[in-house]
Amino acid sequence: MKVVIAPDSFKESLPADEVARAIQAGFLSIFPQAEYHLLPIADGGEGTVQALVSAHNGSIESVFVTGPLGIPVEAKIAFSNDGKTAFIEMAEACGLHLVPKDRRNPLHTTSFGVGELMLHALNHGAAELIIGVGGSSTNDGGVGMASALGYEFFDEQGKQVEGIGKDLFHITSLSDRNRDRRLDTVKIVVAADVDNPLTGRNGATYIYGPQKGLPKEMLNEMDQAMGRFHQIAGSYMGTDVSSLPGSGAGGGMGAGLLLFTGAQIKKGIDLVLEHLKMKEICQDADIVIVGEGKIDSQTINGKAPAGVAKCAPRKAKVIAICGSVGEGSEALYDHGFDAIFPTIPAMLPIENILSGAFANIERTSRNVAALLRNERDGSNG
Amino acid sequence: MKVVIAPDSFKESLPADEVARAIQAGFLSIFPQAEYHLLPIADGGEGTVQALVSAHNGSIESVFVTGPLGIPVEAKIAFSNDGKTAFIEMAEACGLHLVPKDRRNPLHTTSFGVGELMLHALNHGAAELIIGVGGSSTNDGGVGMASALGYEFFDEQGKQVEGIGKDLFHITSLSDRNRDRRLDTVKIVVAADVDNPLTGRNGATYIYGPQKGLPKEMLNEMDQAMGRFHQIAGSYMGTDVSSLPGSGAGGGMGAGLLLFTGAQIKKGIDLVLEHLKMKEICQDADIVIVGEGKIDSQTINGKAPAGVAKCAPRKAKVIAICGSVGEGSEALYDHGFDAIFPTIPAMLPIENILSGAFANIERTSRNVAALLRNERDGSNG
Repeated sequence: MKVVIAPDSFKESLPADEVARAIQAGFLSIFPQAEYHLLPIADGGEGTVQALVSAHNGSIESVFVTGPLGIPVEAKIAFSNDGKTAFIEMAEACGLHLVPKDRRNPLHTTSFGVGELMLHALNHGAAELIIGVGGSSTNDGGVGMASALGYEFFDEQGKQVEGIGKDLFHITSLSDRNRDRRLDTVKIVVAADVDNPLTGRNGATYIYGPQKGLPKEMLNEMDQAMGRFHQIAGSYMGTDVSSLPGSGAGGGMGAGLLLFTGAQIKKGIDLVLEHLKMKEICQDADIVIVGEGKIDSQTINGKAPAGVAKCAPRKAKVIAICGSVGEGSEALYDHGFDAIFPTIPAMLPIENILSGAFANIERTSRNVAALLRNERDGSNG
Repeated sequence: MKVVIAPDSFKESLPADEVARAIQAGFLSIFPQAEYHLLPIADGGEGTVQALVSAHNGSIESVFVTGPLGIPVEAKIAFSNDGKTAFIEMAEACGLHLVPKDRRNPLHTTSFGVGELMLHALNHGAAELIIGVGGSSTNDGGVGMASALGYEFFDEQGKQVEGIGKDLFHITSLSDRNRDRRLDTVKIVVAADVDNPLTGRNGATYIYGPQKGLPKEMLNEMDQAMGRFHQIAGSYMGTDVSSLPGSGAGGGMGAGLLLFTGAQIKKGIDLVLEHLKMKEICQDADIVIVGEGKIDSQTINGKAPAGVAKCAPRKAKVIAICGSVGEGSEALYDHGFDAIFPTIPAMLPIENILSGAFANIERTSRNVAALLRNERDGSNG
């Protein structure tokens, strides 16, 4: 019997790899002989790069780069076993968590450090860069990143700008004269967890600006500046990426990478499933277990469990183990899910629920496995 | 496929028959063709008589009897379809819920109404009385009940007492001269949900007296009076029942019925399972579902789910659906339970959990059924 265990993390309580181990522990007590494949995943948000690194038996390094406020930060970067693929998480260099709450304002933050991480990868000899975009403190349209890679941006007076959010108001020209030539050959893939376009009411500024500290009264002006900057840059580069889905991810970093580095953009979950070879591994699976902190009607909209369920063959049982189950979870029954089980044992203080996550997942998985055991024909894996 | 659904009630949220219907609703969505047997049960506590009545397609009447404080109360009594068996719940006549909190004190309450219910059954022509003992406000050793049946109890001055708790301090003699002669032929079975003996540290007074409002400083004195009363009565009747398990049930009502009516005592759960023909019905079941509000290590100690599990054949899957699961539930795996599933979906306000019980049980049952479905061989009941 082949069991594929591919959960997302249980946010705030257990990382995806621990969730996978807990599920396996429960199944092992019923099916000690089964063939297990543990493929902890992520849906393009935080943890995506970690999932990809795991899939490639990668190694992680720490390097110092320019932080979102200009102060150096220590950022992780990972490489595949053969060193040919680098994995970069934007948030490592300019994540919102790196800026103290009272200093959050995307007018003053930069994605410069992301460009430095890319340079580090190129120096390391990487032929492919996979960049997870999301969780950033910036709304600079990628101007910081591009500056680090050698692009030069100038204001009306012909003075070079430093590459922070508010520079978008002033940039009138740019030059790729000093851009890193290795960008011509390296393959860059952007993993985005959101579909937002660059500008407009559903764009980077309006949707994510406020949570990054952009004053409400600046929304329209900033959105206009973002559009104007990408119009100028797009015209210079000979292409327009601003309406592509995901171009608004990471405060316009999606558009910046598309435009300045020739990157292609993919949904994080698709990229992860592809790199994990989920479809190939699942094709002869008997049981596929997915998991997420909360499962509800939103789960079918591109979340990790839905992506994994699509990889499962018809004959496999697809079972979701979740922290809690919310409104509309029954919609999943029509999307390849056989059954959904929350792991909360009782009404307990939230600390107990969070700290008991491993044990609760293990218990639930053991009970699920016991139902799948077929005593009559003796097939117990 | 044969599915036996035999849950207890989910205390404070859903009665046993509703729990059974919710479980069936969940299973029906996966196995519309299966053969279902709904046998809601009780473990000898509240609901036992209701379960027995259901098992016999019985009918329920209401009669006025003397309440615990002497004020008439309306009490239910049920009869089997053929009228030969009467079902009486002690708590109907003298339950703790019939006494306002500030007036609870077993020195002043009486089980007289239980005797009246028995007379009603005899007048009705019943040949067998099944009496559920528990949940009472009394600690009168059955003196009230016996008085209603014609026994006379006297104090040192030869004055007849009325038959309340504090009379046990004064009774020095009794007479069965006027006892109802139909007691010689009627079969009386006591369904007890506790094993306590009549007296001592584990007896009726010490264990249940305080929750019925007996002042702590009276415990020893009351316990002694209870013992003395049953010594006098036992000596008069020529037998001693005070050390039998269950004689302490219902504030000594177990002992009273044994002594004054020749009753036999049975565990409530055993009686219910016997009357429901649980073993016969389960013998060719494929799936047996039990349920209880909370399942934990205590469940194996004579609770309804454990009793039902014992009736299930080895080949059947025994599955517990519960409101919540507590410490030590894994002990059940060694007592015939394949799996246990709590129905709590998420951390919600308690009102939502209680009011959502039916839907949560149905959802959980549907998911359990989905795991039991075998798509490969097409056996879906």
